[in-house]
Amino acid sequence: MHVFGGIEAGGTKFVCGIGTGPEDLEITQFPTTSPEETIRRTVAFFRVQTNRLQAVGIGSFGPVDLHRSSPTYGYITSTPKLEWRNFDIVGEVRRALDVPVGFDTDVNAAALAETRWGAAKGLSDSLYLTVGTGIGGGAIVQGRVLHGMLHPEMGHIRVPHDLARDPYPGCCPYHGDCLEGLASGPAMEARWGAKSEDLPADHAAWALEAHYLALALATWVCTLSPKRVLLGGGVMQQTRLFELTRKELARLLNGYISTTEITDGLDRFVSPPLLGQRAGVLGALALAEQAAGEGRRS
Amino acid sequence: MHVFGGIEAGGTKFVCGIGTGPEDLEITQFPTTSPEETIRRTVAFFRVQTNRLQAVGIGSFGPVDLHRSSPTYGYITSTPKLEWRNFDIVGEVRRALDVPVGFDTDVNAAALAETRWGAAKGLSDSLYLTVGTGIGGGAIVQGRVLHGMLHPEMGHIRVPHDLARDPYPGCCPYHGDCLEGLASGPAMEARWGAKSEDLPADHAAWALEAHYLALALATWVCTLSPKRVLLGGGVMQQTRLFELTRKELARLLNGYISTTEITDGLDRFVSPPLLGQRAGVLGALALAEQAAGEGRRS
Repeated sequence: MHVFGGIEAGGTKFVCGIGTGPEDLEITQFPTTSPEETIRRTVAFFRVQTNRLQAVGIGSFGPVDLHRSSPTYGYITSTPKLEWRNFDIVGEVRRALDVPVGFDTDVNAAALAETRWGAAKGLSDSLYLTVGTGIGGGAIVQGRVLHGMLHPEMGHIRVPHDLARDPYPGCCPYHGDCLEGLASGPAMEARWGAKSEDLPADHAAWALEAHYLALALATWVCTLSPKRVLLGGGVMQQTRLFELTRKELARLLNGYISTTEITDGLDRFVSPPLLGQRAGVLGALALAEQAAGEGRRS
Repeated sequence: MHVFGGIEAGGTKFVCGIGTGPEDLEITQFPTTSPEETIRRTVAFFRVQTNRLQAVGIGSFGPVDLHRSSPTYGYITSTPKLEWRNFDIVGEVRRALDVPVGFDTDVNAAALAETRWGAAKGLSDSLYLTVGTGIGGGAIVQGRVLHGMLHPEMGHIRVPHDLARDPYPGCCPYHGDCLEGLASGPAMEARWGAKSEDLPADHAAWALEAHYLALALATWVCTLSPKRVLLGGGVMQQTRLFELTRKELARLLNGYISTTEITDGLDRFVSPPLLGQRAGVLGALALAEQAAGEGRRS
């Protein structure tokens, strides 16, 4: 029987998995060191299974080059991690394992995993957002990961900033008070003087955080028209934030979008992801599935 | 030889076209009166060609039901035009002409036309925006019109509103100062006391308008990652607005999105549409092409 390989290539750790899905997945993980050592350990893990391995997927930290016609497709590009800069991660893995290799960003891979096996299963259009050290989003449109010119950089959308209510100027080095600058974990810590996990559930921080997230969700509902929005990441561990965000989203939309998903199903429309810590490696596995399918077609 | 039919179903006029594309298109138009009379005139136009007619497309004023599995698919739904409310426009046309019928919103049809024959030709991902009485957008993602849960309502995204610079509260009955509330033609007229077409090119209105449009474009670049953005509609007839909007977009993105489209090609990245007044009927023609293709497959 054939199996797939998934590589969640993170800046601090690599998670490798082999199997066919959440019920059949063997995982290993190790710290991200030099590219040579890290890829050597990765390849060694998969080589044991190499005669059953049909394809491998990689969900990678970035920035990465996703343009298939580009000479640097499959590279990690201008990362501050110097050893990994301009590293051909897809090429190295493909040469070592000699199977088709799927490739995408870490957040796009997680979005795909939630669509394939998780909280957006069976939905043609959904949005996966992670709110933590940064804010990142992956969109599934008609069953496929949205890429376009580059890939989304959803954390950097502009949202209204009420300076009277919130004088904190924002922490994005590029944009100041973009969404990530106002609502990421570091923004919360800088504004309130405590990490988000240490802020009590009744702290004023959460209503403000829900306001910013709901402003962003309202914009995405009007742009991408997802059938469900999944909110994950460290900041969302404060589960009260879900209810606050749903209420604020309904207030902001103000009855304008009158689909049943919004009017009758807001508890499901804004949900936590289901796959937890395994979303990344499962997303990489789903990329491998897609790569195997493309291999068959071509 | 086969031909296609396109129906631009507008709230004030219907434009019907028959042919195969911009170089081969016979057009007629008439005012939108009662559904019975309007559809009768529409059908009469196409019936002359009925033995060559392969399919018809409709790009319609709305709101419309685009869900293929819905019992009211192909209906104009809760329009304020009472005679047209809950009118089965797709069913009426299909029964009269007995050909496959494609169906979408007017702005999605125009977006499709620009991708098929116009200023976004050959691009897999693009955004078409019309800035006039309202603000509407259609997104092309991987060659297909984005729909999702409903369809985009891009005019209603939230953008930062600097009340010190612009105390005008916005004119959207649902959201006040959403994009449409701040940057549509009626918003310009209410703020400045003159219609946009009567404001001189050096009026302060244009820098503010460019600021709002660029805020929205920055958000869409970070969300949809289009390869080109087309700006049409009455307000964009002030052509100076293109250069102001491009400069403001570059300032807002601040080097964060460093694709060649943005860094070297902003003049093309933000462009006017090419098909002008014919975008709607040509988009309907493109919907007919797609419907014919689906008919062949099914």
